[in-house]
Amino acid sequence: MAVLDEKTLADPVALTRALCDIESVSGDEDAISDAIEKALTGLDHLTVERDGNVVFARTDLGRPRRVMLAGHTDTVPLNDNFPTRTEGDIMWGCGTSDMKSGTALALHFAATLTDPRHDLSFAFYDCEEIEAERNGLNRVAKTRPEWLAADFALLLEPTYAGVEAGCQGTMRADVRTTGTRAHAARSWLGSNAVHSAAEVLNRLARYEARKVTIDGCDYREGLNAMFINGGVAGNVVPDECVVQVNFRFAPDRDEAAAEAHVREVFAGLDVTIADSAPGARPGLDEPAAKEFIAAVGRPPTGKLGWTDVARFAALGIPAVNYGPGDPNLAHKQDERVEIPLIRECAEVLRRYLTAEEGA
Amino acid sequence: MAVLDEKTLADPVALTRALCDIESVSGDEDAISDAIEKALTGLDHLTVERDGNVVFARTDLGRPRRVMLAGHTDTVPLNDNFPTRTEGDIMWGCGTSDMKSGTALALHFAATLTDPRHDLSFAFYDCEEIEAERNGLNRVAKTRPEWLAADFALLLEPTYAGVEAGCQGTMRADVRTTGTRAHAARSWLGSNAVHSAAEVLNRLARYEARKVTIDGCDYREGLNAMFINGGVAGNVVPDECVVQVNFRFAPDRDEAAAEAHVREVFAGLDVTIADSAPGARPGLDEPAAKEFIAAVGRPPTGKLGWTDVARFAALGIPAVNYGPGDPNLAHKQDERVEIPLIRECAEVLRRYLTAEEGA
Repeated sequence: MAVLDEKTLADPVALTRALCDIESVSGDEDAISDAIEKALTGLDHLTVERDGNVVFARTDLGRPRRVMLAGHTDTVPLNDNFPTRTEGDIMWGCGTSDMKSGTALALHFAATLTDPRHDLSFAFYDCEEIEAERNGLNRVAKTRPEWLAADFALLLEPTYAGVEAGCQGTMRADVRTTGTRAHAARSWLGSNAVHSAAEVLNRLARYEARKVTIDGCDYREGLNAMFINGGVAGNVVPDECVVQVNFRFAPDRDEAAAEAHVREVFAGLDVTIADSAPGARPGLDEPAAKEFIAAVGRPPTGKLGWTDVARFAALGIPAVNYGPGDPNLAHKQDERVEIPLIRECAEVLRRYLTAEEGA
Repeated sequence: MAVLDEKTLADPVALTRALCDIESVSGDEDAISDAIEKALTGLDHLTVERDGNVVFARTDLGRPRRVMLAGHTDTVPLNDNFPTRTEGDIMWGCGTSDMKSGTALALHFAATLTDPRHDLSFAFYDCEEIEAERNGLNRVAKTRPEWLAADFALLLEPTYAGVEAGCQGTMRADVRTTGTRAHAARSWLGSNAVHSAAEVLNRLARYEARKVTIDGCDYREGLNAMFINGGVAGNVVPDECVVQVNFRFAPDRDEAAAEAHVREVFAGLDVTIADSAPGARPGLDEPAAKEFIAAVGRPPTGKLGWTDVARFAALGIPAVNYGPGDPNLAHKQDERVEIPLIRECAEVLRRYLTAEEGA
């Protein structure tokens, strides 16, 4: 079993490397969860619990506020980028950006910060990179919502050391055109559903996406075809064509408003909402969030992708993404992290988690 | 082995039923070819040869003209419509329309017409319902072109007892749009190839197909999307979309002219010609063709689908389709033939093949 010793736990860079060198592709997080559980168990300032491959730890120091730090432990499949290697200031390897450099920061502070300014909760969870039903945070949000209770949550996802607040919602809709089959040699006897899809694509091509600013964060929406498929056989006029549309919507729309908008865009066409996930407002008026923004010292930006921040938002907990990784390198073969950013984020978090109230 | 006795060979309706009741899905024509070869071998007025599952027979009576009668022996896969059954004037079953009722007529005259007005050639061939490379007629047209030599050819494909002359050409072209991938949450960083396909579909939807009359036969062209496919993943702006287009063109265009037209319609777009087959002009000015049209007593119509008629046209032999089946029932579960049309076609053919020259 991999051992995270005291010296490693004390150094976020060494700890990042150690976590990355424990293979943990989604669904295979036993070893990394065991190592994290063992690293935290027995520390006087923490209560540690485990549920499947979610490791949860908390302080109970009677502070007026509680802050959650959370990170997932899984990675996308290895791609000839395991184990890590370091060249100068760069650490290369699967998980370095998304998100073991962030998870290492949470684990570092869990293990070493015995007297934080706020009470702290830590969640290390599995299966974030795959379908939502298997996501460990999603699971415990339903079965152990008390674990997630906090005044403010920090998800240490890659943000390149900036604060990304809230997140956009996402909705998948199928826009279907229908027609009548006919032999291609007598096509006028049929009605070509693929030709009818011109109208769907024209509306998409003409669509002007909205930009909106919420709590000082800019969100830019998008309405895009992800797939188009139609066709029966090489000599048959097709009677169905489906355009799968993805709508990314700013968090001032809820799912119902997003659906109404999609239906308005495609008015007169056959629209089926396949699934959706709500966005999350930035929630930066919460004092613990404001203090964190101040500690970072840079204005927050809106998170455009969907992240687990929305799971906290659904529980009424303001949450932001903040981590040293570069989101543009996530899931790539040449995934890497800049070591100075790990140290910068560690410094910001230390300042935030230890400063005097109001300092 | 199935035996086609003298009594069956003398009755085109009984012979249709006997041929239909020999299972012969494409690729499985040994039994039916054996039965046909055996039925014709030993007849004084015929020379019989065989090449794979193509059975060829000919008279050599020194007549000034030679007429070919041809029929394929295979069917599409059975679909709970085997063996045949008869209800009143209708014979139901796989192959009844396409085209064993026609093939039976050719076999009937091969076996029984000992003193025809023209010299006759007969070809019974396999694998017409599948890819062209396996088509028996296609094969012998290359390896034994002398078998196909004739002044006029009758393909006994289903035409509902009318004459369908010539055939349209067919061309498959891929029209491709490209773009740039991006994460769906940051779609403006990419360029959506599916949205760009709107232009392809708009041109198809606006396209006005030409109608043209050649030798008194009307041909109606068609330009249609058969398939459209685009998409990478549910969260990725797609960078490619392909519309597979089928162009059915009248036989006054050759393949080069058809390609030029397709490229003109999609000018400015990325067009790849995937494959094509030329059409065939009706060729009804040939005397043996004119006499046949007169024997049928109804004006010919243009054949809109592609058929093996084009193989004869490629050899400079005028050819028409003429058979008792209903082309709209071909390949259907409820395939059937009207028995009186088998008798009507037999009567027309007998008149044509036995009448005095100029009668």
